[in-house]
Amino acid sequence: MSPQRKLLLLGTFVHSKTQQTLDIFHSAGIAVDARGKIAAIERDAPDLGEAKARLLTKLGWDEAEVDVTQAADGQFFFPGFIDTHIHAPQYANAGIFGKSSLLDWLETYTFPLEASLADLAKARRVYARCIRRTLSHGTTTATYFATLDVAATNLLADLCLSMGQRAFVGRVCMDRAETSPAYYRDASAEASLEATRRTIEHVRRIDPGFDVVSPILTPRFAPSCTREVMAGLARIHRETGLPIQTHVSENAGEIQLVARLFPEASSYTDVYRRLGLLTPRTVLAHAVHLSEDEADAIAGQGAKVSHCPCSNTSLTSGAARVRWMWDKGIDVGLGTDVSGGYSPSILEAARQAAMVSRHVAMNIQIPPDDDAAAAEEKTKEKERVKLTVEEVLYLATRGGAKCVGLEDKVGAFEVGMEWDAQLVALSNVNDDGELPDDAAAANDDDGGDDDGFVDVFGWESWGDRVAKWLYNGDDRNTKKVWVKGRLVHRRR
Amino acid sequence: MSPQRKLLLLGTFVHSKTQQTLDIFHSAGIAVDARGKIAAIERDAPDLGEAKARLLTKLGWDEAEVDVTQAADGQFFFPGFIDTHIHAPQYANAGIFGKSSLLDWLETYTFPLEASLADLAKARRVYARCIRRTLSHGTTTATYFATLDVAATNLLADLCLSMGQRAFVGRVCMDRAETSPAYYRDASAEASLEATRRTIEHVRRIDPGFDVVSPILTPRFAPSCTREVMAGLARIHRETGLPIQTHVSENAGEIQLVARLFPEASSYTDVYRRLGLLTPRTVLAHAVHLSEDEADAIAGQGAKVSHCPCSNTSLTSGAARVRWMWDKGIDVGLGTDVSGGYSPSILEAARQAAMVSRHVAMNIQIPPDDDAAAAEEKTKEKERVKLTVEEVLYLATRGGAKCVGLEDKVGAFEVGMEWDAQLVALSNVNDDGELPDDAAAANDDDGGDDDGFVDVFGWESWGDRVAKWLYNGDDRNTKKVWVKGRLVHRRR
Repeated sequence: MSPQRKLLLLGTFVHSKTQQTLDIFHSAGIAVDARGKIAAIERDAPDLGEAKARLLTKLGWDEAEVDVTQAADGQFFFPGFIDTHIHAPQYANAGIFGKSSLLDWLETYTFPLEASLADLAKARRVYARCIRRTLSHGTTTATYFATLDVAATNLLADLCLSMGQRAFVGRVCMDRAETSPAYYRDASAEASLEATRRTIEHVRRIDPGFDVVSPILTPRFAPSCTREVMAGLARIHRETGLPIQTHVSENAGEIQLVARLFPEASSYTDVYRRLGLLTPRTVLAHAVHLSEDEADAIAGQGAKVSHCPCSNTSLTSGAARVRWMWDKGIDVGLGTDVSGGYSPSILEAARQAAMVSRHVAMNIQIPPDDDAAAAEEKTKEKERVKLTVEEVLYLATRGGAKCVGLEDKVGAFEVGMEWDAQLVALSNVNDDGELPDDAAAANDDDGGDDDGFVDVFGWESWGDRVAKWLYNGDDRNTKKVWVKGRLVHRRR
Repeated sequence: MSPQRKLLLLGTFVHSKTQQTLDIFHSAGIAVDARGKIAAIERDAPDLGEAKARLLTKLGWDEAEVDVTQAADGQFFFPGFIDTHIHAPQYANAGIFGKSSLLDWLETYTFPLEASLADLAKARRVYARCIRRTLSHGTTTATYFATLDVAATNLLADLCLSMGQRAFVGRVCMDRAETSPAYYRDASAEASLEATRRTIEHVRRIDPGFDVVSPILTPRFAPSCTREVMAGLARIHRETGLPIQTHVSENAGEIQLVARLFPEASSYTDVYRRLGLLTPRTVLAHAVHLSEDEADAIAGQGAKVSHCPCSNTSLTSGAARVRWMWDKGIDVGLGTDVSGGYSPSILEAARQAAMVSRHVAMNIQIPPDDDAAAAEEKTKEKERVKLTVEEVLYLATRGGAKCVGLEDKVGAFEVGMEWDAQLVALSNVNDDGELPDDAAAANDDDGGDDDGFVDVFGWESWGDRVAKWLYNGDDRNTKKVWVKGRLVHRRR
């Protein structure tokens, strides 16, 4: 990584204050030091010039040593998104899933593609595009499943580091002959653990402090793994403190399979608990059909859940209950789960989280009128399970940061945290309502439309602007993206 | 409208053959005459040059009188989308709905905005942007609700005509004091009908044959209307044959309200049937909670349904059952229902139709194992209610055309139909996976990314490319849009 200059960011900032509230502050400034850390925040200045002057004075910085980025009127800085569950190799299949559900989807679409990425040229092509696209959608931290192949997994780590995306990169372990195809499985538990150690060593070489890229222990999911490999990964976790990621309780057929394969366990979650994989550093993707006991066990161990609404609907897995998990005390983040989910965008995951929460609400039956108390309670509950704009944006940032153990570093704007952020611009509607240059665009090849289609008329409150961005925003609105103070994506 | 030149379109064409199948043909050509009609289709030529030569010979056209548009490799022509339910004035509120549901959403967000569009400068700004954006998303036909204001409604019709979007424009009738706010309701049934007649006259003046823009009779929904105004609109329908649009059975509270206001009717649908509004030219938006009897009545009268999945989820209305309506013999199209739905895109509506159908599937409970026959039947049913890529694209095109009575004119590529179409381009992934000019883009303000983020690696089948477009496509993929042979939108 090249040495960095100090940064001053000036303008409007929006981030989550709490799960329920956004903190929006204007005419403000944030100073970022040469290591990418937020050194000071000035939010009480009367204007941007004064905010800048105060920050320079306070920190004793010279203007010449600082790069200044000023958000234009209506633009705002927002924390980078955190994708807590994404399969990088499956990026090439985004949108291709037919009418499949989990187990047949794995066999038909997923295992063949993943296996084919042992070809490193192909892996480079898919991984580079996956990282570039997720960065362009504002994903500053991604928690990746790679494949079984060590060289391709190491390449993914190399690319994340060189392209500047904060990442957890997991070499996938799957060694159970009964459930994994012969062409795509580890030869033995020992071989699986040995391959995992090689990817850990590789990442330690390229990023010794795991400052940007970290290994993550990755048993695919219980049905793919023997007890030996899972126990071995738990051992590595205890030795190294490395995080763990896997799947839990996504689909009814999968849950039945787990019950058959692990008769000693009282539940799917209990398989992980018994083998030492249910830890405060464990990210469990999906968690759609958890029992009360499972949720209590997850909360009790401090394990985290990655909610993947797009995937859960696409593969007809079910509708996960975020409010219920929050009530249990479980930390929840968002995952695109590409390509079970078709979209590489966490903004899309956030809006689908809002939509899925409404389906959860719609499934709450209101009892007939003759039981008024029960009806009132259910009506309240129905209202409460819906997630707000503020809540799904929390999931996309601070919630995700907690999920991957980075809550002290990223997900919000606070002194001491690192500058993982995006600059967001919306489209301003002019007086005649036509797109700028549109008349020209109809006649020649010029005419821009680069701000996407979130149309701001000017009378909207800031809360409404953020809602408009959530619901119709895309990568065009994300103009610049920084990780650790380094500019890693820029859109014209 | 300016006089038109003849067109030759050359390349790959994709359209719905049936509800279940796409017809994809390559190295083909379509000739469009100066009135915008498809004069000939050549699909058996060995290459584009030969396709072109054969069409010119067959039609006796001279090359000099023809504009040729050739789709590049990987691009394809697709029928224009048909939005069978969209509220143009509410475009300004897209994405702003909070946690509301139908009745409070109307009062809080919708009526105030609609009323404010009596200001014609404001109406022009909102309507022009709405038309421009929907065109840019490939919507060649839109069925609009306007507002109560005659002048603003007429302006919407003017703008559709001048911007070239095929449209049905409805002046909204709502005259029931009990349910409509004093600041936004018709003074009487007679005043409401009189205002409707004035918009009909206006459209007749600007487009006498209703070739591009047609009036549509628009009782807002039963709760907003007196019996008098609905009966009066039915009379105008019988006199003129003009189409009708309204809402039905969207939300539980609304259905209770209808039962209270119209005790003589056996159901919500029955209100319209009794008053003469349930006709083959009637488009009923939503139809979420229909009873068997209501669905039978709709099918029996040949009335149509506009399925609005984005809206139904956003406002927690419910999950409409498209497969069930199809089984009943009801014709179904798609509606964005902006701004109950947040997205102006019918491509988005199509993918949300796929998602909502999966929620309908997930709500089908499989009985316990001891009733194997019942379990098998429910499992099959669960599979069957999911909509495929082909089916939701049918809804977006031919299904929509049937819904608005234009199935002989638009929605597919057949001789005698009109050229309402879009040219679609996806993004080709280069060898290193990086975006073109991306290295440059990180350092300066150049570097394009205009093909959106549907990434094609080159090994995908055409069916998979179309699926990728459905699930991750946006307005960037729609490069050109034609209505009646006229180029009405072009993206660089």
